[in-house]
Amino acid sequence: MSDPVHDGDPTRLTDDARLTEDGLIARFFAPIAGEGAFGLRDDAARIVPGEGMELVVTLDTLVAGVHFFPDDPPGAIGRKALGVNVSDLASKGAEPRGFLLSAALPQDHGARWLGQFAAGLKDAAEAFRCPLLGGDTVKIPGPLTLSVTAFGETPRGAMVHRFDARPGDRVVVTGTIGDSALGLLLRTAPGAPWTDALGVEGRVFLTDRYLHPRPRLAAIAALRAHARAAMDVSDGLAGDLAKMCRTSGVSAEVDVALVPLSDPVRAALAVDPTLIDTVLTGGDDYEILCAVPDAALAPFLDACDRAGLRATAIGTFVERNGEEDALPVFRDGGVETRYASGSYSHF
Amino acid sequence: MSDPVHDGDPTRLTDDARLTEDGLIARFFAPIAGEGAFGLRDDAARIVPGEGMELVVTLDTLVAGVHFFPDDPPGAIGRKALGVNVSDLASKGAEPRGFLLSAALPQDHGARWLGQFAAGLKDAAEAFRCPLLGGDTVKIPGPLTLSVTAFGETPRGAMVHRFDARPGDRVVVTGTIGDSALGLLLRTAPGAPWTDALGVEGRVFLTDRYLHPRPRLAAIAALRAHARAAMDVSDGLAGDLAKMCRTSGVSAEVDVALVPLSDPVRAALAVDPTLIDTVLTGGDDYEILCAVPDAALAPFLDACDRAGLRATAIGTFVERNGEEDALPVFRDGGVETRYASGSYSHF
Repeated sequence: MSDPVHDGDPTRLTDDARLTEDGLIARFFAPIAGEGAFGLRDDAARIVPGEGMELVVTLDTLVAGVHFFPDDPPGAIGRKALGVNVSDLASKGAEPRGFLLSAALPQDHGARWLGQFAAGLKDAAEAFRCPLLGGDTVKIPGPLTLSVTAFGETPRGAMVHRFDARPGDRVVVTGTIGDSALGLLLRTAPGAPWTDALGVEGRVFLTDRYLHPRPRLAAIAALRAHARAAMDVSDGLAGDLAKMCRTSGVSAEVDVALVPLSDPVRAALAVDPTLIDTVLTGGDDYEILCAVPDAALAPFLDACDRAGLRATAIGTFVERNGEEDALPVFRDGGVETRYASGSYSHF
Repeated sequence: MSDPVHDGDPTRLTDDARLTEDGLIARFFAPIAGEGAFGLRDDAARIVPGEGMELVVTLDTLVAGVHFFPDDPPGAIGRKALGVNVSDLASKGAEPRGFLLSAALPQDHGARWLGQFAAGLKDAAEAFRCPLLGGDTVKIPGPLTLSVTAFGETPRGAMVHRFDARPGDRVVVTGTIGDSALGLLLRTAPGAPWTDALGVEGRVFLTDRYLHPRPRLAAIAALRAHARAAMDVSDGLAGDLAKMCRTSGVSAEVDVALVPLSDPVRAALAVDPTLIDTVLTGGDDYEILCAVPDAALAPFLDACDRAGLRATAIGTFVERNGEEDALPVFRDGGVETRYASGSYSHF
């Protein structure tokens, strides 16, 4: 869309002679805008929680070369930027309501790139029922940097926190763990022997799991009803469980044999059992990790099952006796491991 | 604050042997956290608008080398990142409630830099009554990139939009225009003849206006009560007025002699009258530009005056007859100027 009136400092993007910020917003982002965004024609958006509801807000920033590869498909980058934030909302028991986007764009990200990026973002916004409310688009003499602020809604007082796990609660995760970590390895170390054990289908599955986080919105009702604490698994199961333990003042014991794994991950582990450390500490699972009181475990698993989501109890939260047992222990047969650097930290 | 338990991938910042993201948050950002932030120990924050209130949200991103100088004082950068967002809230008639911070930090921004940055941010958060609610801190192999999402509150339906100006409404601005643009020139072209006309006090004033935006929170009540449309002046008076006109489907006529100027700017213009273009198009004023119905002008100016804020009528919104008069006209004696590239666009 061209805007003949506006004549601000034009940005010379590769695919367009001139693309102003307003033109860019009208062309690529306005189609994703929802109620309260005022067609992206204002400096701010409005958001009104429903009767008896409160807002939950979260923010995650992704930098090219740090959180994704600069040459990942632009649409996948768009889906991921929104997906990782909606995943945080879901883990809090919050239904998505909308998001703000900060896009710091390098000079060579032109209309072609933006078109594909916006298409992926739109798909994700529709799939997650989370429309664009506003944001800011700036130039950056550096790597593509995306920051999303996502808004969700819970009934008043129903937000599920990270820091409320208690001794005796069960450690529960949704879906399968480690797919994304091996999907990343497929890309960074494609010739490793274990990769031969995967068929084309397995490779596609793991790559897709790395590229396209699927926020577990199906878990929201079960979390609100039954979970004591929850977070999404973004920095690796071991590291994120350690965070939940630390903030809750507890520790945990996990039975590695119970950790839910996909068939491709099982096939890879059969060839190279040492990959288990990558599976348990690798990032980008975007599953939900939660603490469920023992008495609520069966109802929680049932509720997930009815929502079409697999959930698995993999261990138990325990009293923390001191620094030495603060990190959760992972038991694999007779071997006990505490992952001291268990967090795949982006910082 | 050190956290002996956490052992995630450490960041080797210049002033510390090891500074983890959690350690950094606890040390620099937790002291700025407000209610609903849960001590920054959760993945998300909670925000509940008051009875009968709705939330207004806005996001602005600042990149080093684009929106500020990398060697600006870190505290000034912190104040600015929050200030420019709170300025957007104020222009919508919204009282600040809190903010989220995305900080993408280059490797050489160590504890010393962060300490000064956080101190400036804390001063601003307290001055604007806008506490930190959460955010994300990541590494960036590029320039310091800060994105703030700010939350404000208005009575339901009272948000003042950018796009509601009508023909006959008066064009009103708060404070003085062009100080920041000349403050920037002082830095980028320090030897220009007009700079000799400024005393030390004038230089300090203009530099301070450039470095430290002061959101016009004092205007909120007057805007809610009397303004039809409003926005903050961040990209230059001419360009921002053009935006208001474009989104409102009107044009405007401004009498340049009425545009409020500070003494240092008057002194500079006396030496170099051509600076008026910089004054009218330069960015970073962070004053409020609004459309006030003629009948409400006196009450609006009175309300601002009672709040300790100067406001000045500088022109009138008029019917827009076609593309050729879509841009506002600035009349200076017998000379009429339409600033075709009137917007100091950061994009």
